[in-house]
Amino acid sequence: MEIRENDLIKRIKRFEQKSGQVIRGIGDDGAVVEMSGGRYVFVQDALVEHIHFEFSFMDAISVGKKSIYVNVSDILSMGAEPLYFLVTIGVPKDLSFKTILDLYKGMHRAAREFDVILLGGDTVETKGDFFIDVSMTGILKNDTYLGRNTAKTNDFIGVTGWLGESAEGLYKLQNHITTKHPCRYIKRYREPKPPYNIWKELMKRGITNAMMDISDGLIIDLERMMFESKKGAVIYLEDLPVPERLKKEGREHLAFSGGEDYQLLFTFGKDKLKDFNEMKKDGFHVSLIGKVVRGKGVKILKNGKEMTISSKGYEHFGDNT
Amino acid sequence: MEIRENDLIKRIKRFEQKSGQVIRGIGDDGAVVEMSGGRYVFVQDALVEHIHFEFSFMDAISVGKKSIYVNVSDILSMGAEPLYFLVTIGVPKDLSFKTILDLYKGMHRAAREFDVILLGGDTVETKGDFFIDVSMTGILKNDTYLGRNTAKTNDFIGVTGWLGESAEGLYKLQNHITTKHPCRYIKRYREPKPPYNIWKELMKRGITNAMMDISDGLIIDLERMMFESKKGAVIYLEDLPVPERLKKEGREHLAFSGGEDYQLLFTFGKDKLKDFNEMKKDGFHVSLIGKVVRGKGVKILKNGKEMTISSKGYEHFGDNT
Repeated sequence: MEIRENDLIKRIKRFEQKSGQVIRGIGDDGAVVEMSGGRYVFVQDALVEHIHFEFSFMDAISVGKKSIYVNVSDILSMGAEPLYFLVTIGVPKDLSFKTILDLYKGMHRAAREFDVILLGGDTVETKGDFFIDVSMTGILKNDTYLGRNTAKTNDFIGVTGWLGESAEGLYKLQNHITTKHPCRYIKRYREPKPPYNIWKELMKRGITNAMMDISDGLIIDLERMMFESKKGAVIYLEDLPVPERLKKEGREHLAFSGGEDYQLLFTFGKDKLKDFNEMKKDGFHVSLIGKVVRGKGVKILKNGKEMTISSKGYEHFGDNT
Repeated sequence: MEIRENDLIKRIKRFEQKSGQVIRGIGDDGAVVEMSGGRYVFVQDALVEHIHFEFSFMDAISVGKKSIYVNVSDILSMGAEPLYFLVTIGVPKDLSFKTILDLYKGMHRAAREFDVILLGGDTVETKGDFFIDVSMTGILKNDTYLGRNTAKTNDFIGVTGWLGESAEGLYKLQNHITTKHPCRYIKRYREPKPPYNIWKELMKRGITNAMMDISDGLIIDLERMMFESKKGAVIYLEDLPVPERLKKEGREHLAFSGGEDYQLLFTFGKDKLKDFNEMKKDGFHVSLIGKVVRGKGVKILKNGKEMTISSKGYEHFGDNT
């Protein structure tokens, strides 16, 4: 369709949330925001049709939500609260006006869950495929950020939620194993909402040294963290939070390399172990899965025995079990 | 080509500028920046291959520069100094690594001209076409922003630089009217550097009430400004800064509707006319082209006589001259 920019802006303005800090919102060359002094985090992450998702696997509302979730995930990983976002959508001619509005509806719903405010952005035409690109700003809760480069030797390694859920959901969609109501895996794949409540508790207790979100798979992302921190890591296979169904059906490898988990991976010192265990007792889903060591790379131990793994994690793992 | 993200990040890191404010730059989930209290401006603008440009008309370095210029232009329009930017590039498989580096080289060169700092972003694969999407943050020079909604009745209307240059450049490229060294028009089309020095002087003298950049053509953009300000405007045809060549060759309409000028359109009160004229005397290329009036819409006067124009500006204009 022809994008009628003025029409669209009028409709989008309905999704604008009010805030005393936003002095000028959608409808000008830029948005103006009153900000206090502090340390701010900036991220930008895109979803591209046929590369990151298919409209046959998820509707526009879910795509909109996911575009927010993946950016919120990055903001939280740094130890910051999300505040504002802008969005560019690239729209091929055959996309309906309703689809565009559904995208904004999805973004709006996800944004409300984190009190993050739409400031504006751009709508552009594309020749072929649809894309959505969100930039987001957050403010650090404490003065220190939680990077990939701040893991310390002898830190424990923790993770939130389940691993491999999202990949299992994609597997089911690709193999047409669907039911009338989407199962937890497909839901997680479509709408990987970051574990905000767990994050808040982690922050409140000041547990974490290093943090990142798992977007490309546990092993690859942990390797990245260790590389940036100039450390190595040991993972205890039996302690990974892998859903029973994946174990039963022989797709345990999805917990290593599945990607799109959008769970938080973090390290913490021995002095925080008590806090960590209290969190577990209080019902927060966190798992202690390994330890930071001197050296480099990631080793996986199964009942104390080292397993050889490639950077993709699952290949030799599959051979060895 | 396959994007080797780690390789790319390593190469891009060379384009990172040092700044005491940037606490954590490229290479983590997000960038961390120390910011003072104040009013900040946020913009985001994309260029899409085959829609906004063709690689046959401009090389990757120019595309990189232009992606920065169009965003800087929006920031300046609001009355703010550009500070930081993030960028997402969408890369089809057949784009070379060199092309990607040239894009960053172009962005880097343009960014240096305005002291705006690359914080990070995203590199994604696309099935088909290339796109580049930049988000940028700036800080207001004064507490009040210069919006589209702040033009006052009886304000004069001013514009920087020449109108129609960029459109003339595109015309030449489309019609293969090129010489060995690109002419000023083609240069302007490829690299529409915002008039930073003129902007600085306008800001220093506090001349402007409303401001916006001309991206879709003088008439459309002026109509937008008047709509937001709930005013009307009168334009004096003979005072428009149209290059002689366009008049001679009958393409004067490009000054109305050509688009991509990225010049600044602004209004100012009678009390600032002296300042405005002093600027002209000092060699700054600004032109007084009209006046803000009660009512709505944009009228064009030729030697005092009103001309009927469509919202595209040139159609009836072409008929009437």
